[in-house]
Amino acid sequence: MSEFRFALEASDGAARAGLIETAHGTVRTPAFMPVGTAGTVKAMLPDSVRATGADIVLANTYHLMLRPGAGRVAKLGGLHRMMDWHGPILTDSGGFQVMSLAKLRRLSEEGVAFRSHLDGDLHLLTPERAMEIQRDLDATITMALDECTPFPASEADAASSMRLSMRWARRGRDAFSARPGYALFGIQQGGIHPELRAESAAALTEIGFDGYALGGLAVGEGQQAMFAVLDHSVPLLPADRPRYLMGVGQPDDIVGAVARGIDLFDCVLPTRAGRTGQAYTRRGTVNIRNARHQEDPRPLDEACACPACRRFSRAYLHHLVKAGEILGAMLLTWHNLQYYQDLMRGLREAILTRSLAGFAARAVALEAEGDIAPL
Amino acid sequence: MSEFRFALEASDGAARAGLIETAHGTVRTPAFMPVGTAGTVKAMLPDSVRATGADIVLANTYHLMLRPGAGRVAKLGGLHRMMDWHGPILTDSGGFQVMSLAKLRRLSEEGVAFRSHLDGDLHLLTPERAMEIQRDLDATITMALDECTPFPASEADAASSMRLSMRWARRGRDAFSARPGYALFGIQQGGIHPELRAESAAALTEIGFDGYALGGLAVGEGQQAMFAVLDHSVPLLPADRPRYLMGVGQPDDIVGAVARGIDLFDCVLPTRAGRTGQAYTRRGTVNIRNARHQEDPRPLDEACACPACRRFSRAYLHHLVKAGEILGAMLLTWHNLQYYQDLMRGLREAILTRSLAGFAARAVALEAEGDIAPL
Repeated sequence: MSEFRFALEASDGAARAGLIETAHGTVRTPAFMPVGTAGTVKAMLPDSVRATGADIVLANTYHLMLRPGAGRVAKLGGLHRMMDWHGPILTDSGGFQVMSLAKLRRLSEEGVAFRSHLDGDLHLLTPERAMEIQRDLDATITMALDECTPFPASEADAASSMRLSMRWARRGRDAFSARPGYALFGIQQGGIHPELRAESAAALTEIGFDGYALGGLAVGEGQQAMFAVLDHSVPLLPADRPRYLMGVGQPDDIVGAVARGIDLFDCVLPTRAGRTGQAYTRRGTVNIRNARHQEDPRPLDEACACPACRRFSRAYLHHLVKAGEILGAMLLTWHNLQYYQDLMRGLREAILTRSLAGFAARAVALEAEGDIAPL
Repeated sequence: MSEFRFALEASDGAARAGLIETAHGTVRTPAFMPVGTAGTVKAMLPDSVRATGADIVLANTYHLMLRPGAGRVAKLGGLHRMMDWHGPILTDSGGFQVMSLAKLRRLSEEGVAFRSHLDGDLHLLTPERAMEIQRDLDATITMALDECTPFPASEADAASSMRLSMRWARRGRDAFSARPGYALFGIQQGGIHPELRAESAAALTEIGFDGYALGGLAVGEGQQAMFAVLDHSVPLLPADRPRYLMGVGQPDDIVGAVARGIDLFDCVLPTRAGRTGQAYTRRGTVNIRNARHQEDPRPLDEACACPACRRFSRAYLHHLVKAGEILGAMLLTWHNLQYYQDLMRGLREAILTRSLAGFAARAVALEAEGDIAPL
């Protein structure tokens, strides 16, 4: 079993191309992690996820600890075996979902007590318990428990929230049982405040993690503010470790963040959009429910190699989605994940050939141009 | 393009194994046709349907004429191209669904007028229009329009209903434009009344069809009454043409009907059951939602080669279905279709080796034995 290791292959400006080696295989970066909330990337077979080019998927601790339960996942041999995904899996800490429960949770120094949205049962999530649960899940990459600072927040609130997350990060590090090829990532907080981001980066680096995430972004601050935080914060994180921008994002968010030195992403957008008839294409997003597609024999995206584009027409996809057919969700999800993976591969190749600026400008311009003209 | 042809390979008692050659390929019989109501076998990619061993699928004229519309399907190059299923497709005439609209339809000698359940628009389905629509769909096998006689019906009602269907059958035959490798099937009616079934068989044979269906069964009369009709009626149909028992059925219905000389079947059960957590196995049906599966690491059916059984545990399938995950519907649908196709292959091989009686007895006994014991 190989050590967990990040090997930098090339950089182009702040952007990096690399390889993350793990106990469950290698991740080519920059990488997008499809979200498999409840231990399934919705509407996809694992082989199909792999076929899009994904090296790693994300699963949600909150959902899995409630159903089927971390102990049950452990008894079934861990997440990889249970969901038949044998590549790396990153699990979040559960904190983000718990914080969003609002009235159903209570935050303290110890951790966060909450009631399950499924059955009302009381649970306590602490930095230590988050490690145990992710160990039960057999996560390749474990995330420290943090409080995702709400936006907007006063600087004082952002500071106390971030400092709580840093104390929790230390407790998580102490509780984490290291295994070869497995990793623990810390999460930087501090809202949009440069001093707080710097303090958080210093605290995390002092504790020492296998990788560093940026948390508390893409929560309403807007792309410009997010990029400003990246411009300031990414250089504060150790260059020899992977950097992960949590919960991001739209394709142009990803392009901009890669250019600023981010290596890992996750987002529900491509899968969620796929279940509501929204498709990402090289010429912007398409609402396949729109009547203008109803007799269009052309593929969704002529440059895409996914089954939705290679085998079916826009008219058929329109029909499936209008009729509420599961195959519509299956095909559009596959397409959107293919689109995201193609984008990541394009970004990676551009970095390896030091041509990122041109690639990024073309990708964003083509998207802005809009969908192909109606027939 | 080959002629439409039924080649008998072997028989075992009344049971037959054969090959139906069509413009879109060969169907090994006895055959089960997965139902692709709206131009998609629900929750399945066409390649996956093929992978289960299916040679032919069924699509519903009623649903397709309303959405996306037969003209639109024709513009897209027909059903095969639209849905990426390049094997044979049988379409029903639309009659069965229209008749079930109750207050929304009015039957006359000319045909049946009805209002769409989607938008309330008025439509008229006649024997001639049913031919046009199925031609637009590019159905490999077209079904004549009939009135599916309700059950129970008095002998007088069953007689007048059957005779209307026979007049319609003649009009359909006259309106059907023959093409090499394409076929038109007539539908026998007559309820559970032997004389009416005989009259209907004589009328259809006199008109002359490429294949003969038995309609108006599996509508509440029970397996024993249905088998009695088959015992009486199947020998009345031409031996050199395929015989199709519409809308049947449960596995033991199929076993019994094959033994009585039926070659073709269709039924929504395996696909519909797959979307509600019900699985057909070699030891009877399993409700995967049942709590006894929640920690069971064993496959659904140890003898099954489908992805649901080869790659996942009962516990994971239970989790997916409880969580309402689309992958649960995808995997259980695949499994159920695999189960049905395995059953058909087993029946076919048993007929080819003249061992049907033993195979049928074992298959039915194993199912009756019940599911594997809980852990």
